[in-house]
Amino acid sequence: MAHKYVYMFKEGDATMRNLLGGKGANLAEMIKLGLPVPNGFIVTTEACTEYNTSGKKLSPDMKNQIDQCILELESTSGKKFGDNKNPLLVSVRSGARASMPGMMSTVLNLGINDASAEALANAADERFAYDSYRRFIMMFGDVVTGVSKDKFEHALHEYQQKKGYNSDSDMTAADWKAIVEIFKTLYREDQGCDFPTDAKEQLYAAIVAVFESWDNERAFVYRRMNDIPYEWGTAVNVQEMVYGNMGATSGSGVVFTRNGSTGEDKMDGEYLMDAQGEDVVAGVRTPKNFEELKDEMPAVYDEFIMHSKRLEKHYKFMQDMEFTIEQGKLFILQTRNGKCTAKAAIKIAVDMYEEGTLTKEEALLSVDPKALDQLLHPAFDPASEKAAQVLGSAIAASPGAAAGKVYFTAADAAAAHEAGEDVILVRLETSPDDIMGMVVAKGILTAKGGRTSHAALVARQIGCCCVSGCEAIKFNQDKSFTLGGVTVKEGDYISLNGSEGNIYLGNVKTQKAEIADDFAKFIAWADEVPGRMGIRTNADTPKDSLLALEFGAEGIGLTRTEHMFFEEDRLPKVRKMILSETEAERRAALDELIPFQKGDFMGIYEVMEGRPVTIRLLDPPLHEFMPTEEADFVQLAKDMGKTVQEVKSIAVSLHELNPMMGHRGCRLAVSYPEIAEMQTRAIIEAALEVKKTKGYDIKPEIMIPLVGDIKETRYVKEVVDSTAKALCEAAGVKLNYAVGTMIEIPRACIIADDIAKEAEFFSFGTNDLTQMTYGLSRDDAGRILEDYIEKNIYEGDPTAKLDVTGVGELMRMAVEKGRKARPGLKIGICGEHGGDPYSIAFCHTIGLDYVSCSPFRVPIARLAAAQAALRNKK
Amino acid sequence: MAHKYVYMFKEGDATMRNLLGGKGANLAEMIKLGLPVPNGFIVTTEACTEYNTSGKKLSPDMKNQIDQCILELESTSGKKFGDNKNPLLVSVRSGARASMPGMMSTVLNLGINDASAEALANAADERFAYDSYRRFIMMFGDVVTGVSKDKFEHALHEYQQKKGYNSDSDMTAADWKAIVEIFKTLYREDQGCDFPTDAKEQLYAAIVAVFESWDNERAFVYRRMNDIPYEWGTAVNVQEMVYGNMGATSGSGVVFTRNGSTGEDKMDGEYLMDAQGEDVVAGVRTPKNFEELKDEMPAVYDEFIMHSKRLEKHYKFMQDMEFTIEQGKLFILQTRNGKCTAKAAIKIAVDMYEEGTLTKEEALLSVDPKALDQLLHPAFDPASEKAAQVLGSAIAASPGAAAGKVYFTAADAAAAHEAGEDVILVRLETSPDDIMGMVVAKGILTAKGGRTSHAALVARQIGCCCVSGCEAIKFNQDKSFTLGGVTVKEGDYISLNGSEGNIYLGNVKTQKAEIADDFAKFIAWADEVPGRMGIRTNADTPKDSLLALEFGAEGIGLTRTEHMFFEEDRLPKVRKMILSETEAERRAALDELIPFQKGDFMGIYEVMEGRPVTIRLLDPPLHEFMPTEEADFVQLAKDMGKTVQEVKSIAVSLHELNPMMGHRGCRLAVSYPEIAEMQTRAIIEAALEVKKTKGYDIKPEIMIPLVGDIKETRYVKEVVDSTAKALCEAAGVKLNYAVGTMIEIPRACIIADDIAKEAEFFSFGTNDLTQMTYGLSRDDAGRILEDYIEKNIYEGDPTAKLDVTGVGELMRMAVEKGRKARPGLKIGICGEHGGDPYSIAFCHTIGLDYVSCSPFRVPIARLAAAQAALRNKK
Repeated sequence: MAHKYVYMFKEGDATMRNLLGGKGANLAEMIKLGLPVPNGFIVTTEACTEYNTSGKKLSPDMKNQIDQCILELESTSGKKFGDNKNPLLVSVRSGARASMPGMMSTVLNLGINDASAEALANAADERFAYDSYRRFIMMFGDVVTGVSKDKFEHALHEYQQKKGYNSDSDMTAADWKAIVEIFKTLYREDQGCDFPTDAKEQLYAAIVAVFESWDNERAFVYRRMNDIPYEWGTAVNVQEMVYGNMGATSGSGVVFTRNGSTGEDKMDGEYLMDAQGEDVVAGVRTPKNFEELKDEMPAVYDEFIMHSKRLEKHYKFMQDMEFTIEQGKLFILQTRNGKCTAKAAIKIAVDMYEEGTLTKEEALLSVDPKALDQLLHPAFDPASEKAAQVLGSAIAASPGAAAGKVYFTAADAAAAHEAGEDVILVRLETSPDDIMGMVVAKGILTAKGGRTSHAALVARQIGCCCVSGCEAIKFNQDKSFTLGGVTVKEGDYISLNGSEGNIYLGNVKTQKAEIADDFAKFIAWADEVPGRMGIRTNADTPKDSLLALEFGAEGIGLTRTEHMFFEEDRLPKVRKMILSETEAERRAALDELIPFQKGDFMGIYEVMEGRPVTIRLLDPPLHEFMPTEEADFVQLAKDMGKTVQEVKSIAVSLHELNPMMGHRGCRLAVSYPEIAEMQTRAIIEAALEVKKTKGYDIKPEIMIPLVGDIKETRYVKEVVDSTAKALCEAAGVKLNYAVGTMIEIPRACIIADDIAKEAEFFSFGTNDLTQMTYGLSRDDAGRILEDYIEKNIYEGDPTAKLDVTGVGELMRMAVEKGRKARPGLKIGICGEHGGDPYSIAFCHTIGLDYVSCSPFRVPIARLAAAQAALRNKK
Repeated sequence: MAHKYVYMFKEGDATMRNLLGGKGANLAEMIKLGLPVPNGFIVTTEACTEYNTSGKKLSPDMKNQIDQCILELESTSGKKFGDNKNPLLVSVRSGARASMPGMMSTVLNLGINDASAEALANAADERFAYDSYRRFIMMFGDVVTGVSKDKFEHALHEYQQKKGYNSDSDMTAADWKAIVEIFKTLYREDQGCDFPTDAKEQLYAAIVAVFESWDNERAFVYRRMNDIPYEWGTAVNVQEMVYGNMGATSGSGVVFTRNGSTGEDKMDGEYLMDAQGEDVVAGVRTPKNFEELKDEMPAVYDEFIMHSKRLEKHYKFMQDMEFTIEQGKLFILQTRNGKCTAKAAIKIAVDMYEEGTLTKEEALLSVDPKALDQLLHPAFDPASEKAAQVLGSAIAASPGAAAGKVYFTAADAAAAHEAGEDVILVRLETSPDDIMGMVVAKGILTAKGGRTSHAALVARQIGCCCVSGCEAIKFNQDKSFTLGGVTVKEGDYISLNGSEGNIYLGNVKTQKAEIADDFAKFIAWADEVPGRMGIRTNADTPKDSLLALEFGAEGIGLTRTEHMFFEEDRLPKVRKMILSETEAERRAALDELIPFQKGDFMGIYEVMEGRPVTIRLLDPPLHEFMPTEEADFVQLAKDMGKTVQEVKSIAVSLHELNPMMGHRGCRLAVSYPEIAEMQTRAIIEAALEVKKTKGYDIKPEIMIPLVGDIKETRYVKEVVDSTAKALCEAAGVKLNYAVGTMIEIPRACIIADDIAKEAEFFSFGTNDLTQMTYGLSRDDAGRILEDYIEKNIYEGDPTAKLDVTGVGELMRMAVEKGRKARPGLKIGICGEHGGDPYSIAFCHTIGLDYVSCSPFRVPIARLAAAQAALRNKK
């Protein structure tokens, strides 16, 4: 038997979304529910894939199946396709697995030609018939064969001007008939051939056009933005026409069953009488508020309300519906889950729970965790953003919106901030040296680096908006850059949308994030779900820790001690430590740093009040701390009693060709155990002190980064243990601390059983693990990814969500081997993926104990982890 | 029951080497064979490990077991330990699992004190007794308690001078007795206590000293050089003394059963009458040639020959034996496989096969493949090397020996070479930019980088001696460097031993490699072994290919097309290609390169005469080709009609933070498919042309580097396929070519089943795979490894031989998954490990089809692969 490429609506249902597309599956489901839906059929997504991979032709088999369905449609409707007596007209619409609004316009009234128009005129109404005909020519011309819509509209406008008409309503049947002829001529001139009169020919061409639209630029961009794989393809829905343009008792409308912005339980829609669907959207006439229908056609209104309530209950979500009234009879043309703001989604979920439509579990599952991001960051005022001049767009690296004056160095940014300016820091790429400028900036724009570049990581960590990897930026010599044809100087305003990746000229108005009342109630449900992973945060300061606690974090999964090293009063001491040529020199420099680190840890312990705190030993390569400015070298040389030349030469000797794979992580602790010793001392002394003064039961978790070998793990652990032991003994206090490891090197996953013999806990560092598993440096990925995405090799940055196939396999191996060697081993994740819902779901399935993410993502992680637990239970 | 830490000889045999050490296991074995071996016992290597990890004490249990064995020794000898009538004396010797010559000196005559010396004098001979006594004090003092041997020798020398004696033979019993008193005084003065008189106390102390010697500096260096793990530990052999110093019918000797330098089948040994073993070695008197014993003591001589032939047959190898004659009776004190040169090893293997002692298989297994390296590279004249002044030592990165004048830049090196000088190129580290200097150099010395650094890789490839990672070098401003306290200026002579890692001042005499006659015969046997993996070579030029063929390569496993890009006449064109800003510009530049690449490939095909040739598409990041010198920038700008500023700014934009994980490999082909297209064109056109003119059946294997994703593999493969197809069709010729991939990224191993759907062969790139699996950059590993080795975390560079545990596991996974998806998939290895015997053995076990290595390592690989096949068969 031939493969089935075409399904009548009655053959499908809502579960067949992948095959039939979202729109088609829902139409089929509504038929099944007995709703008034015009009959039709669906050409499957598989047919689209087949079309796109096999020479871009509809196979004879496909055509045959389509023909069969047309026959069936003729039999149920009693009309005939292409007939010149009782013609069957159809609409043709695209419908992908995921909703892709505006991917391809609809073609209505397909199947019409001169003869069938005449027949329609005789059977129904002449004006209606030629109105429908001209609509079809324009839509088909525009959508299927690429004749510019403007040409048609221009011709219509000219005609109406000549006649002195104000709007379409002035047009008579004769006028539309004349327009049909004008449009046909226009088509012939543009295409060099007559407008097709054969209904089948029209249909095949329209189906091909839908398939082709899957490959167009708009669809490409949309897919990329929404992580939709090219392979999915789109289905095509062919449906018997019902006519909203059949006079005063006909009409069309669009309705959201609740308010998509606020979530309020009130129909939100519009309709137009004597109009087809696209008129409502196109704004030819001003549509009426849906509520007016209650007076205009009360029976139809009541029927619609009944259907809409039923669909809401059935789909357990607010619905986005289209309907047509044909001479007083209601038809539902589409329903789908409505798009709404995060605020609305939460209100709807809470309302639906309270009205009994949803269980708590269903309510939790109804909200996309990613959407919560909106609630936690400032955004642009939508109108102002729409009006602003776009300079360009790049990678949406850290969400939020920001406007400020451009500065090009961390020092300039810091000075401007001091002077009270709002600052946008613009850099080729950032390094830890830029921290001082980054923390004061409202937003950060870089020319290089992807979602996991230094700029992006730090920005997300500090909750600052960031657009990265804008390769189109050209930096000029005079403190200015050129982008999108505009040259922006230091001090000029630009605005960044870090959630979308857009860069605007000027000072676009921002509005503060609104936290809806229902938010707290809703997110608390997430914490009740049994078996949910723990949620920790990545925080380096008491301030971040507090913020994360407010967002619901249960502990700290990662404190990066090196971030503390960059503060202005410490950096010179850190540099002295690094440039030490003997252990004695280094110990002296470290002694100066201890009070600072100890103070930091005390602050964090105090905020966390006995909750778990995981502190990672120094990780980055030492040369990241080196000065780059001459003045800093001079000062440093003076401080250290060395010549500038000597200091520079040490700095050069620290340079590495591939610092990501160089002298960092536990390798530093092996070379300079005194650093690990100092850090352990600070961690333990701080814990002892806070335990004594505040009475909290503090259990520090000390984490060794970058391990890949059992003996290296043991070496560093022994340094930590002996230091900690001595301090506890001296204090006469028993302190429970644990020593564990980051798992962030492929080899660590492979020998996890070995490492678990020493490590008392694991925490996946999926940023580094992903880089090394892919052999792809986050700092250098920008240009590469652009090419890969453009060539359809990657749908998006493959490292933004956890690579389940590659990296995930290594993680699974590590969990299995680790727990085999040490049953019950506590395992978490503290890479960026710890805040990504897709990755969180995976972490749940491989049995992690907790995820840790930046404070701003804690609510997202709470919801995503709850959903993972719920889905896994099913 | 207590753990058994001590074994009598009769309880052991040769298979218990790991527990009893090599010496002990062989003594036990000889006892078993019925050879005349003095009885004794062995304290095991486990006892050593226990001692070293448990507080550095002999446990009461160990002491007890030792005491029991002493009792048994007393009973078999009829003597008593520490007795003042018939005292039992013993020797104490170290004996690790692998032979570690000179790790610790022997202690002879242990158990003697004033009373027992007296007893010995009465029972045997007074002179013998006090001679033995004084020997013991000196050895014990030196070896066990650290009293300098020089002090004793100085005292003896002074005494003899005073007496007017010429040698020890002039010493009377009374003289020795006097010396004993002098030595005891000397000991007391040095140690602050009396010389120990209790035999047990002496014995325990000597055993502890052996255990401690495992941790000493000399042992550390030796272990590191020979990859001997610290954990192995050493055993201690305690053996009843027999006396070679009991007068004219007594003596001691050392014999190699064949000549260790030439392999000649002729006893090669020395002996001394009336002497203990160490006299032979120490050169107190000139020893006699072993053959003289035939006349002096024919019966003893015959007996020895009988035993030695038996041991050779038993151990299937040339033996290194020690013997003692006590009053006419022969005792064998040691036998072990003799150390010999590669030349000798091969001759012995061939001879033993021909005389019927060994089968061909045994002969093949008797030679260490690594040793063959000696035969393939020049070496220093041993005497000259010994006499030379050592400046320092670092990583033995590429074997051989070289002397030449120092130059610091590639340009200076090339100029000096032009002028007829022998050149040693000295660099901080090398980059592809230095190639011109490297190919003309006799040797290369770098301050940074390990065994897998650029310098090391290229040096091994071109067969040039290299010492790398010499961190101690200080470069001065005036074209000079300082090392080991000496400042070496440009043009001064230094000499490098790339097999050992030593750096000498001056022009040390080298000698050319000698290829023994038996070599060809022997290595041909390796090719007969059934199931042996294929051996290919990594070669980029016809010259290298020819060399590899002569060494026995069966094909080319890796041609690095980028190496061709560095030649002087091409580099400017390559740079133009890289700096192109449009595809059109790039294509124009590529068109200029095609004739060169095509010519290269034709040359290689012609040499290979239809054997398989694997060519890898462009791999390194493009900025490696960028100029660094101002003059080059100026020239390039002129060539391209751009400003110097523009050219530099493109070069800067190409810079990457981690180039190893950046825009390279197949990522270049995705961004610039026209490069892959040009290379494919050159590969295919060259094949078509050589096929036509020479009639060879050429099947090029085109290899895509750095893949980590199925779609990226497919993309590049399609570029290759469509180009190749078009060329073949145009030529009207059917050409069999294959498109495969490097497997060099961890993710590629994990998704190997996916990749095998596209790839027609795999070749492991274990250099990159190791770097990424360890997260360790070869260019930056030098300093890290120093620290890791010093702290006993690594025994040596863990990347020098294949990391079976980590990287190997990924390889095993890739082989399994790859062959599952594509049964019979051909899989090879072309990383550096392809020439390392240990790694080759592993490759055999996971089922690789071939290994590919640099031409100079082909014979090693042939033997190693044959051994792997033989061992696996067993």
